[in-house]
Amino acid sequence: MATPIDPARSLLLTDLYELTMLDAYRREGMEAVASFELFVRKLPPCRNFLVAAGLEQLVEFLENARFTEEELAWLESTGRFSRETLEYLRAFRFTGDLDALPEGTVFFADEPVVRVTAPLPQAQLVESRLINIVHFQVLIASKAARMTLAAPGKLLLDFGLRRAHGAEAGLMAARASFIAGFAGTATVPAEPLFGIPIYGTMAHSFIQAFANEREAFLAFARSRPKALILLIDTYDTEAAARLVVDLAPELAARGTPVAGVRIDSGDLAEHARRVRAILDEGGLRQVKIFASGGIDEELLARHLAEGVPIDGYGIGTSLTTSTDWPALDCAYKLVAYAGEPRRKRSEGKATWPGAKQIFRRYEDGRMVGDRLGLAEERHEGTPLLVPVMRGGVRVGPLPGLAEARERCARELAALPERLRRLAPAEPYPVEPTPALLALAETCDRLQRERAR
Amino acid sequence: MATPIDPARSLLLTDLYELTMLDAYRREGMEAVASFELFVRKLPPCRNFLVAAGLEQLVEFLENARFTEEELAWLESTGRFSRETLEYLRAFRFTGDLDALPEGTVFFADEPVVRVTAPLPQAQLVESRLINIVHFQVLIASKAARMTLAAPGKLLLDFGLRRAHGAEAGLMAARASFIAGFAGTATVPAEPLFGIPIYGTMAHSFIQAFANEREAFLAFARSRPKALILLIDTYDTEAAARLVVDLAPELAARGTPVAGVRIDSGDLAEHARRVRAILDEGGLRQVKIFASGGIDEELLARHLAEGVPIDGYGIGTSLTTSTDWPALDCAYKLVAYAGEPRRKRSEGKATWPGAKQIFRRYEDGRMVGDRLGLAEERHEGTPLLVPVMRGGVRVGPLPGLAEARERCARELAALPERLRRLAPAEPYPVEPTPALLALAETCDRLQRERAR
Repeated sequence: MATPIDPARSLLLTDLYELTMLDAYRREGMEAVASFELFVRKLPPCRNFLVAAGLEQLVEFLENARFTEEELAWLESTGRFSRETLEYLRAFRFTGDLDALPEGTVFFADEPVVRVTAPLPQAQLVESRLINIVHFQVLIASKAARMTLAAPGKLLLDFGLRRAHGAEAGLMAARASFIAGFAGTATVPAEPLFGIPIYGTMAHSFIQAFANEREAFLAFARSRPKALILLIDTYDTEAAARLVVDLAPELAARGTPVAGVRIDSGDLAEHARRVRAILDEGGLRQVKIFASGGIDEELLARHLAEGVPIDGYGIGTSLTTSTDWPALDCAYKLVAYAGEPRRKRSEGKATWPGAKQIFRRYEDGRMVGDRLGLAEERHEGTPLLVPVMRGGVRVGPLPGLAEARERCARELAALPERLRRLAPAEPYPVEPTPALLALAETCDRLQRERAR
Repeated sequence: MATPIDPARSLLLTDLYELTMLDAYRREGMEAVASFELFVRKLPPCRNFLVAAGLEQLVEFLENARFTEEELAWLESTGRFSRETLEYLRAFRFTGDLDALPEGTVFFADEPVVRVTAPLPQAQLVESRLINIVHFQVLIASKAARMTLAAPGKLLLDFGLRRAHGAEAGLMAARASFIAGFAGTATVPAEPLFGIPIYGTMAHSFIQAFANEREAFLAFARSRPKALILLIDTYDTEAAARLVVDLAPELAARGTPVAGVRIDSGDLAEHARRVRAILDEGGLRQVKIFASGGIDEELLARHLAEGVPIDGYGIGTSLTTSTDWPALDCAYKLVAYAGEPRRKRSEGKATWPGAKQIFRRYEDGRMVGDRLGLAEERHEGTPLLVPVMRGGVRVGPLPGLAEARERCARELAALPERLRRLAPAEPYPVEPTPALLALAETCDRLQRERAR
């Protein structure tokens, strides 16, 4: 079948049960307003905090959430849905409210990242893709923030498109890591789509295609890249560094001075020290050393501690797949329906009921603790969730990517010192308010009564 | 900027250096034919074999590889490329050859999965997205195959869209796991796009939205799902199982007999045993038990060994993010240029030169060893790489998904017994042929001579 379904834009990119449940809700007349919240149940042991990201893509998804005629024709052809449900799907628009943490905000377990308030069938239908969009960017921004903290003053670049999980992951990893403090990416569409600076050097295959490194370096310089970064590990790293010293005057004379060299294999620290010495002795103190290949935040921290002379890092797989922890234990749960709070009690998966707000307190510019309360409460501290959409429409322009990046930098600076380190730290305090505790109890009592 | 770039289809979804190098190749007149091969350098410790997948999407990418006018306008606006290079990009089509392992084929370290033979700038430009497409489906098919082997006779379903890394990953994980023996997925577009059976039950939020489980179960039955599977762990799993027994006659009388129950939390094995007992005592021996939540191949194997009465599994995160090993150490390397073999010598990353073929030998229907030789050699055993495209055009229709799935089942059955187990096993023997060894030596000698 050649249905023109674009998974990245299609409302059909969902789990079958979302459609089945929507059908049942409609049949039962259950279209009262529901609130769902997306949160992470438990931080991984290797994450002391998480970073909100992906809100812009979520808003675009909700604004454009509709079925195409081809998709409706396919849904009809399956015989799974009544004519009335198909008509409902044809007219489907998201008309609800969205409250969310601004991108770049630091958050913790149990804290809502996003709240959808909409007629139950709507809030249900958008679940799978909503999680899919937000979870991934949170995952990557949170991983990237660890790298940013581990390598202050270093240029960090996303080189991870090739091993990211598909097209969208490749592109959105560039976006999420930029929010968390990366300087840019190698992924080209990040520049026209998001204004993210793009960087590139040269590949081993380029060097290999020429008779030798000398010819390859000279040819690459003739293509006049914005900054001439030469890859020096294809055959013998130190020999290539000496070749760079040898060629430097000629390249400078031609108007393409050597800006840097890149090392992509072997013991990066050891090679960097030897290459630095060769370059310095050759009068190339201003030439930077870039490293790539198998880099993660632990290595960055080790290099920093040892004073390894690497100026910038291209980071791929460990960033774009969040290798050490490639998925977060997140959930999008019903917290209220038709004005009544709801709560799931499954073992190890119980949730806080009601529409909630996070109140964050600071002392001397550092975060000291959050209160998790009800949305209508007022407490000391900054309320973190802000209105984003009302009645299916944005309440105003979203903060731009630069603003999200600045926010993240401020948030990382305000983290308690122990949470800024890579090692697992005592968790940040998030306390439920008395009103939230009371609501949870009421919820359990109601549930027990109704079960009878 | 509002450039309509669709990352999943755009040739711009690449690393900047691919464009920079293309520019340099063109400037240097280096447009002779190059061969690049994609292979995995080293299997992860937790993988005894890998499964080829993603070829159909790769062929579609190569067939449609071109720049849109908007993309060209943006490229021009950056000032990075000459008019001549922009004209080349405007006319860009992939006119090369593609040889590949058919989807579903088992392979090992150092064995080429895909070979591209094309003018150097073409073969280089497609690198990043080619790896991005093939790596992910290989990753997931290889993970899913472990699950298939660990749970013979069980119904395995992909439930992982929400935590997959983006839209494409969600959809392609459904495809790759189907090749490896999964029965289907919850991800809706997998049916219209690939003909993969889709499955769904109900969510906790559905139950929570009703006053109690009884009302929720009855309402869900009224929506007449193809098979009535009731979710029983929202509040108290065993109490809900008794409720199912209680409601069963009424539901059967209404024409929607209970087909199964689903458990999604707690100790799945323990709950399944108790629920099986409750159902059996209630006369519901035919009702199946499905489980989901935190399942991986180790748990499947444990359940099988213990005879846990679970009939089917919905597997999410561990499958679609390949949690234990979310990226493979793969590379797309130049192996020949202008008729001469090429080889990279970087530390720990040396590659085999020349266009290669894999010759697989069988004894009594089981694989006993592969020879890695040159494409033009003839050896005992089945040559695994087959022609897929010639001159940019398919040589014939690709095998369908059903055929790939059958091939994978045959391959898994033919694996040496030790490799079919989850535990790390002695590696499968892959021997370079004398001709390949000789070529590698020649290559090194040539390189040494040229470096002088």
